[in-house]
Amino acid sequence: MITIAIDAMGGDNAPKAIVDGANLAIKTFNDIQINLYGDSESIEQYLVKDDRIKVIHTTEIVTGEDEPVRAIRRKKDSSMVVAARDVKEGKADALLSAGNTGALLTAGLLVVGRIKNIDRPGLMPIIPTVSKESPQVILMDAGANAEVKPVNLEQFTVLANFYAKNVLNVENPRIGLLNNGTEEGKGNSITKEAFDLMKQLDDINFIGNVEAKSILTGEVDIVITDGFTGNAVLKTLEGTVKSIVGLLLDTLKNSGLKTKIGAGLIKDSLKETFNNLDDTKQGGAVLLGVKSPVIKAHGSSNDEAIFNAIRQARTVVSAGVVQDAVNYFEN
Amino acid sequence: MITIAIDAMGGDNAPKAIVDGANLAIKTFNDIQINLYGDSESIEQYLVKDDRIKVIHTTEIVTGEDEPVRAIRRKKDSSMVVAARDVKEGKADALLSAGNTGALLTAGLLVVGRIKNIDRPGLMPIIPTVSKESPQVILMDAGANAEVKPVNLEQFTVLANFYAKNVLNVENPRIGLLNNGTEEGKGNSITKEAFDLMKQLDDINFIGNVEAKSILTGEVDIVITDGFTGNAVLKTLEGTVKSIVGLLLDTLKNSGLKTKIGAGLIKDSLKETFNNLDDTKQGGAVLLGVKSPVIKAHGSSNDEAIFNAIRQARTVVSAGVVQDAVNYFEN
Repeated sequence: MITIAIDAMGGDNAPKAIVDGANLAIKTFNDIQINLYGDSESIEQYLVKDDRIKVIHTTEIVTGEDEPVRAIRRKKDSSMVVAARDVKEGKADALLSAGNTGALLTAGLLVVGRIKNIDRPGLMPIIPTVSKESPQVILMDAGANAEVKPVNLEQFTVLANFYAKNVLNVENPRIGLLNNGTEEGKGNSITKEAFDLMKQLDDINFIGNVEAKSILTGEVDIVITDGFTGNAVLKTLEGTVKSIVGLLLDTLKNSGLKTKIGAGLIKDSLKETFNNLDDTKQGGAVLLGVKSPVIKAHGSSNDEAIFNAIRQARTVVSAGVVQDAVNYFEN
Repeated sequence: MITIAIDAMGGDNAPKAIVDGANLAIKTFNDIQINLYGDSESIEQYLVKDDRIKVIHTTEIVTGEDEPVRAIRRKKDSSMVVAARDVKEGKADALLSAGNTGALLTAGLLVVGRIKNIDRPGLMPIIPTVSKESPQVILMDAGANAEVKPVNLEQFTVLANFYAKNVLNVENPRIGLLNNGTEEGKGNSITKEAFDLMKQLDDINFIGNVEAKSILTGEVDIVITDGFTGNAVLKTLEGTVKSIVGLLLDTLKNSGLKTKIGAGLIKDSLKETFNNLDDTKQGGAVLLGVKSPVIKAHGSSNDEAIFNAIRQARTVVSAGVVQDAVNYFEN
């Protein structure tokens, strides 16, 4: 049985979307147990009772405005901290929250704890691409570390490689270093050193430097970068998709009759296409490098997104990614 | 008379697109003189003779594969280097090339030369947004400096502000610092220090930290960042637009009859919408911080893009942006 600890109070649609997603997951997977942390009364109004769902009552909530480190240190009875503590103590195998990202990263680091010899865990979203053959790409780090050393990028490479192989079943993941040009020798002092470290890794399919324009094309399975650049890239990507799709919808809505009729005719095909780009289907972003998987679902997650994040947590635990990392780094 | 020195041999469509663009510009603007640098025979086959176009024969070409510093130092008789030298010597007021970006930045730095007290010039593309009220945004630096100090970001702020005010006629440009969150105190050590420096600048409308998802929305007129992150952001943006538009076209082409008919009906409206996102209309990216404007047109520029870059060079020279910068930094 895989036990997943879920912060039921985190996210824009908590606790309803969280509890609904959990209900669905329990019905779908018979090998999981879910612990929901939060205000028991608010949770229970949405809960479908089941032997495999437990509610753990907590009295505090980490909000989006909370300063991460302070929140994790002081809000000892918050749903996020109590859930993290149970993971740390082995009462659950994975931690899931749609709440404050910075606080969750801090809970992962300070409560769940780093794997020995890993200096910095990294946050790893799985992004849909436009390629049918290679429909997803991992970005690591997408925001856990605003500053890195080359060795951190080397460790991200190893961690993300385990994930792509064992969770996403990519046979020989193509790993690129995000850089300002593809030639060897490009970049700043950190990427230059990281390039040399990554080149020397055994059993890693390092394809060299990649540019940000290649992220969505399916040319690469894993893109390694620091958390500052990764955050900028991820937000540019999300912002651009949103802007372009918005512009498209505006055009279709506000043009003349001819365009409106045309829009009606293409609606279904477009919906299908853009559905494939919906990143909630991919689950959440995984904090890798800590002793148990910590999964960050989007703040705006609905029940389906939470369900997908639970499915992902289940797969990450059963694939043994953390154990792989422990074996690699501790020995 | 404004004299523009143009590297006629740089870019994927050189020299034809370059010469065609120059012909059009001469016909349109009667206050400019153009010097075309390159192989005179190749140039003259496309040239419409005019008193205000001069061809300066050169024997070498800086290619896309050339290592920038080496190319600028060794290829003394290349179209790019001779054009840069003429700008340096006051024989022309601005330099324009669609060739090797790194080499052009090096020519700007080493041949044209920095403005006194500016440590690092920055590369500044003008990006179309999806907002009608605020249809463009400046990104500075988009790739000239893979590593920066906080003071460089401060200087970029002043330079870009002069450009937005005097060339784009934005009255009180809203300037944001690209960061991994909007709150003060976010970021890495460089953005934290830069924030404090930017806050203290007089006559600058600093709106604080901005996230990359705000670049295309029209919320901000100038986004300040280092050249490594800026390069990643710009390429993510270009790559995402290309991927999404490609996906859209694929859907419209490869779906059933209903969608095909619909596609025919919406074609004109879509074309109009996406035309506004065409960045060749904005001209090129400007290297600011050197003694004369240096403009980098896209490598794939056609004649229209070259024409727009010439128009831009003319505006930048007559707006006196370089003189503004000299007055500010030398005094």
